[in-house]
Amino acid sequence: MEIEKILKEIVKKSEGKILLIVMDGLGGLPHPDTGKTELESASKPNLDEFAKKGACGLSIPILPGITPGSGPAHLSLFGYDPIEHQIGRGILEACGIGMELTKQDVAIRGNFATIDNNHIVTDRRAGRIPTEENKKIVETIREKIKSVRGIEIVIQTVKEHRLAIILRGKNLSPLVSENDPQKEGLPLRKIEPLKEEAQFTADVLNEFLSKVEEILSGIDTKAKTILLRGFSKLPEIEPFQKRYLLNPVCIASYPMYKGLAKLVGMEVINELETIDDEIKALIDIYDKYDFFYLHYKKTDSAGEDGDFKRKVAAIEEFDEKISKIRHLNFEVVCITGDHSTPCLLKSHSWHPVPVVVVSRNLITDSVERLTERECSKGILGTIRSTDIMYILLACALKFEKFGA
Amino acid sequence: MEIEKILKEIVKKSEGKILLIVMDGLGGLPHPDTGKTELESASKPNLDEFAKKGACGLSIPILPGITPGSGPAHLSLFGYDPIEHQIGRGILEACGIGMELTKQDVAIRGNFATIDNNHIVTDRRAGRIPTEENKKIVETIREKIKSVRGIEIVIQTVKEHRLAIILRGKNLSPLVSENDPQKEGLPLRKIEPLKEEAQFTADVLNEFLSKVEEILSGIDTKAKTILLRGFSKLPEIEPFQKRYLLNPVCIASYPMYKGLAKLVGMEVINELETIDDEIKALIDIYDKYDFFYLHYKKTDSAGEDGDFKRKVAAIEEFDEKISKIRHLNFEVVCITGDHSTPCLLKSHSWHPVPVVVVSRNLITDSVERLTERECSKGILGTIRSTDIMYILLACALKFEKFGA
Repeated sequence: MEIEKILKEIVKKSEGKILLIVMDGLGGLPHPDTGKTELESASKPNLDEFAKKGACGLSIPILPGITPGSGPAHLSLFGYDPIEHQIGRGILEACGIGMELTKQDVAIRGNFATIDNNHIVTDRRAGRIPTEENKKIVETIREKIKSVRGIEIVIQTVKEHRLAIILRGKNLSPLVSENDPQKEGLPLRKIEPLKEEAQFTADVLNEFLSKVEEILSGIDTKAKTILLRGFSKLPEIEPFQKRYLLNPVCIASYPMYKGLAKLVGMEVINELETIDDEIKALIDIYDKYDFFYLHYKKTDSAGEDGDFKRKVAAIEEFDEKISKIRHLNFEVVCITGDHSTPCLLKSHSWHPVPVVVVSRNLITDSVERLTERECSKGILGTIRSTDIMYILLACALKFEKFGA
Repeated sequence: MEIEKILKEIVKKSEGKILLIVMDGLGGLPHPDTGKTELESASKPNLDEFAKKGACGLSIPILPGITPGSGPAHLSLFGYDPIEHQIGRGILEACGIGMELTKQDVAIRGNFATIDNNHIVTDRRAGRIPTEENKKIVETIREKIKSVRGIEIVIQTVKEHRLAIILRGKNLSPLVSENDPQKEGLPLRKIEPLKEEAQFTADVLNEFLSKVEEILSGIDTKAKTILLRGFSKLPEIEPFQKRYLLNPVCIASYPMYKGLAKLVGMEVINELETIDDEIKALIDIYDKYDFFYLHYKKTDSAGEDGDFKRKVAAIEEFDEKISKIRHLNFEVVCITGDHSTPCLLKSHSWHPVPVVVVSRNLITDSVERLTERECSKGILGTIRSTDIMYILLACALKFEKFGA
């Protein structure tokens, strides 16, 4: 990224605190009956107040037309090139449940699955076994398999049928194929190296799976093997502290977002379940940090489910909660989404996301509502979401002049 | 830059004349009492007339959030990548006072300073000695030191305590440290090479400084040594004539901008003091060139001083003067700033700058006033300032079609 060529030269410490609020999947599309988007349908006086007081725009998550996953969408918001820095799912999953990772590790997402005697996959999620059952099985595997071919195996429950696995040791490569046949009724696949250097890793994994299947065959559970995917190593990402001279914190309830925040060096506040917990945490730790990333999940979940009413309600719920931070004295507040999740599409989408930045060092515009159409008329214009971080830093006076 | 890959292929000569007016530090921020920016507060019928007749937009000087110095900001306006082409302060200073530079030269900015008998810096600006005193001292040094270790020393007064020095000869490197301790009460530093190849240059400079101090010790002046900084060589910049097939001229009063213009190959009109001089020069030389860069400094100076009223007055003064060029038949006129200098910040800033382009080959918009907020609604949208030059060239029909 262009800006990385000069960032070291210009970044400086300053007093101002920055709050970045990410309402996951914020943007939407018009409801066919009303012609109004989720944001246009919601009653949200507080969010609209931010739009009135701030400078508005639309933010393109990656590139025009490109729908991002949560990983790239967040990296972009954090000011990193999302195409240069690609994060594997295994890494995200492992980070998200608090597993510590080292640079040589290969992290993997796993699903417990049911197979028959002929290794045909009959249930790719092992009947979504309860989290407690998962934990017991994982404990058993952990006791019986400490390592394979000298490679340490670290294994941990995520929830229901999901788990995360870390291979720790030398000469590991994430370039191996999945064992998941993708459809039920098909045989389990062997893990194959995608490049020669990954032969050893494939051997380790196939031997690990054999041992797991042997253990599970003796236990009364639907979990009979593990489908592995998202093989990945830690990406090389310069942390916020070094890159921006910030002392950042993540306030989020979902593992994925906590994992992403850790990757860029944020401290993560744990045991937050609800948005009330998050707002309370924000108030409690206000004095301790200078960059706060606050994540709100419900807008995205409702969008993914295609539940227009619930997404509107989620926006309205957040609108009410956000009024409680009025007394905090942030130099800069930004409210945006990592991407759009229109109920109409029941999925993430490429559509530019409304963004508002409130700072005394910006010119306000005439936008009065935080909606897609209104924000398109804002003074920030349509920007790339990687730009947002630099605008926030500039507004908090955290940059020196570039050149003489 | 992308466009450099095809520029040679498409650039052509054409009749139309281009006028680029740079109102330095044009953009601002709202006054806390009125909510209006400097441009919104000024009465400027002529500038607004340009906005009405032209296509408007906002221009990002370097990248979102990045505050530029005058060097990068101008290079950008001239269509060069400001990150690729970084210009040292010494070069700018030397160019600005009309010193001719060759490729092997190292140019340096100097301040006369006061030191005591123990080499402690007691005044980093030697009491801001009058320019006349500076000139006399420089004359004495020039007579007594023609060269050091075979390196020719060219030395010239800038003004008050400031001077420019050129080292001319072989094996010179700008990679040396400053002798300025940055604070008064600290000892003068020795100049050190930052890379091995700069040892010789450091030796030359330390010997030069010893000789200067010996000379100054015998003169009745507060100037007792020279603080050196901004060591630099000419950057490699393809001149306008070759790059754009233009015959360009600079109409500016301040050394810095004349220096920048020379760097890109512009002819520089000298001995212009006021905006009246500049306008008169523009009219006088209208026939001789096809690209005119006219620089107006007062908007920036007032912004840097945080003097809102004076910045408004500077805008109004320019507005009046600009009416005098109505009769000139430019194919394209552009009015913009190199960057914003909001009185609120008393410094350059990153905020996008209003830009208007008047040309019969553009679609006008509904913008009626040259202000930040109005221009954000213009048909040009929010562009990078490097794009402006190419839009001007295109409007003057100076490009062939790209590809078949």
